[in-house]
Amino acid sequence: MIIDCHGHYTTAPKALEAWRNRQIAGIKAPAAKPRIDELKISDDELRDSIETNQLKLMRERGSDLTIFSPRASFMAHHIGDYQVSATWAAICNELCHRVCTLFPEHFIGAAMLPQSPGVDTTTCVAEIDKCVSQYGFVAVNLNPDPSGGYWSSPPLTDPFWFPIYERLVEHDIPAMVHVSTSCNACFHTTGAHYLNADTTAFMQCVTGDVFSRFPRLRFVIPHGGGAVPYHWGRFRGLAQELKKPPLEESLMNNIFFDTCVYHQPGIDLLATVIPTRNILFASEMIGAVRGIDPRSGHHYDDTKRYIEASTVLSPGDKHAVYEGNARRVYPRLDRALKARGQ
Amino acid sequence: MIIDCHGHYTTAPKALEAWRNRQIAGIKAPAAKPRIDELKISDDELRDSIETNQLKLMRERGSDLTIFSPRASFMAHHIGDYQVSATWAAICNELCHRVCTLFPEHFIGAAMLPQSPGVDTTTCVAEIDKCVSQYGFVAVNLNPDPSGGYWSSPPLTDPFWFPIYERLVEHDIPAMVHVSTSCNACFHTTGAHYLNADTTAFMQCVTGDVFSRFPRLRFVIPHGGGAVPYHWGRFRGLAQELKKPPLEESLMNNIFFDTCVYHQPGIDLLATVIPTRNILFASEMIGAVRGIDPRSGHHYDDTKRYIEASTVLSPGDKHAVYEGNARRVYPRLDRALKARGQ
Repeated sequence: MIIDCHGHYTTAPKALEAWRNRQIAGIKAPAAKPRIDELKISDDELRDSIETNQLKLMRERGSDLTIFSPRASFMAHHIGDYQVSATWAAICNELCHRVCTLFPEHFIGAAMLPQSPGVDTTTCVAEIDKCVSQYGFVAVNLNPDPSGGYWSSPPLTDPFWFPIYERLVEHDIPAMVHVSTSCNACFHTTGAHYLNADTTAFMQCVTGDVFSRFPRLRFVIPHGGGAVPYHWGRFRGLAQELKKPPLEESLMNNIFFDTCVYHQPGIDLLATVIPTRNILFASEMIGAVRGIDPRSGHHYDDTKRYIEASTVLSPGDKHAVYEGNARRVYPRLDRALKARGQ
Repeated sequence: MIIDCHGHYTTAPKALEAWRNRQIAGIKAPAAKPRIDELKISDDELRDSIETNQLKLMRERGSDLTIFSPRASFMAHHIGDYQVSATWAAICNELCHRVCTLFPEHFIGAAMLPQSPGVDTTTCVAEIDKCVSQYGFVAVNLNPDPSGGYWSSPPLTDPFWFPIYERLVEHDIPAMVHVSTSCNACFHTTGAHYLNADTTAFMQCVTGDVFSRFPRLRFVIPHGGGAVPYHWGRFRGLAQELKKPPLEESLMNNIFFDTCVYHQPGIDLLATVIPTRNILFASEMIGAVRGIDPRSGHHYDDTKRYIEASTVLSPGDKHAVYEGNARRVYPRLDRALKARGQ
């Protein structure tokens, strides 16, 4: 079985974006604010948006199950206040839940959180509980920078975030550390902000000690870990300068990198320097990079091809990357699979 | 000849830091503000600080010439106003000039700029002129985020920066795009902010068109280009989505990556995906990562060992990385070498 741990609902029917635009307009002009029940998307529309997009590509490329969450760039936690984020998160999570219910063999949910800059993270707990208990979601996406490129929240090692961590540990679910759209003109969203956030989050974990306090907390750092594997020597050396234990001991029971690296040499580097047990198959398909690489004739984000072609990973390693590691990092996913005999 | 294009004066006599601390204290308490002539560092002290540090390691490791600039993390352009930065930049550049004068065979200068958040970049021109004309410097360090981690300046493709670019082109010198210390608690200076800035600057160049306007402008992106080579497929794919020409055509006549990547697999990736003509040897020694890698028994930042061990680079490629490319990217360096028969 091939589990893709990183898929977003980037192809939702246009009605969703239209509703969101009205919600945003309603921040300044409350009369324009739409009611939640004004968003009407039928099961057929959901089915169509998936069958002609993600599921079509999953079948073509040969992956089986995607951990599926709301579109990352649309989370936009910097827009409006907590109430705006809470309503928007609830809507997006419910839509993902409906997709997962329509295609239970192929999609299982991960939640967007109702974060808002400067707001106590205890306010995220109810949405986590609902998504896990009612929807059967197996993870959350945690935005380390709800300001959208101004980095006004404390580092992930700060007690500010502990209410979320306590709940994640209680539910035994990991968090993918994933920012949303950048509203800072310096940072291109998918070409800079995403990768910077991955690197930043990892280094915060190097300097802090959040995993001593929460030994069962697990972070999935997407996009191949940002700059981290390429600079693994730098990070090992910095940990040494900081008198920390080796990264493999201090962090790598709790941090995992996905394979959203869109060329063979990048995947080869990842597989060379990062322990196999810390690598999770993912494509972030359909996402930021949708084109076909003229050099290979295949989609840049068809990451399975790079794993298949890897001479660094043994067949056993590939099984771990495709399935075994995900079952360990997402125990609720493993239980859901086992419950249906998989 | 082996040219290291990235060295900072990280080992300056303590009197420099003491003077800077008084300068900073003087921002709030003008009576405490030190006079420039109160900073006294003798040639013997300069000589000693270099001979026992950078020059000792250059001899041990076998590099010949370092492009030498003020300590990057001490630039701290976010502290004080333009006048504070201007005084500090002048002092730091002059010290580097004195080092280069004491060791002309081994060091040639690159200037720190008197940047200050929000201040018109025309104010940097006089320092550039002085450093080039009077000191014989061959490059500058350009800080894309003088706010120190809040990214409040426009992207490098914005006309805000053009007065600097005009002068760089006029003098035919490149800029290394190098941030300073982070005062944002989210970003570890050398473990996140530096790498993020490299990635950010590159992506700004992908989306903008600054090199159409300034075809002779050259940026050296340090630390191996941040996350860029590891995600080369992503950047190629994003350029394609943006309907830009291939990166090799649109950017790689103007952008160069150094080799400050502190492990063999990272250097191998860099050499695999980035055209050899765009790679410049560098170590950033003595810098962020000073320790010995217990796995190799050698210093993490002894990057020459990785180049030597590379099976990706041919002997001709290695010559280009060590010397040929630097002579092309830094024509004033080439002229200075030729003037003394090298």
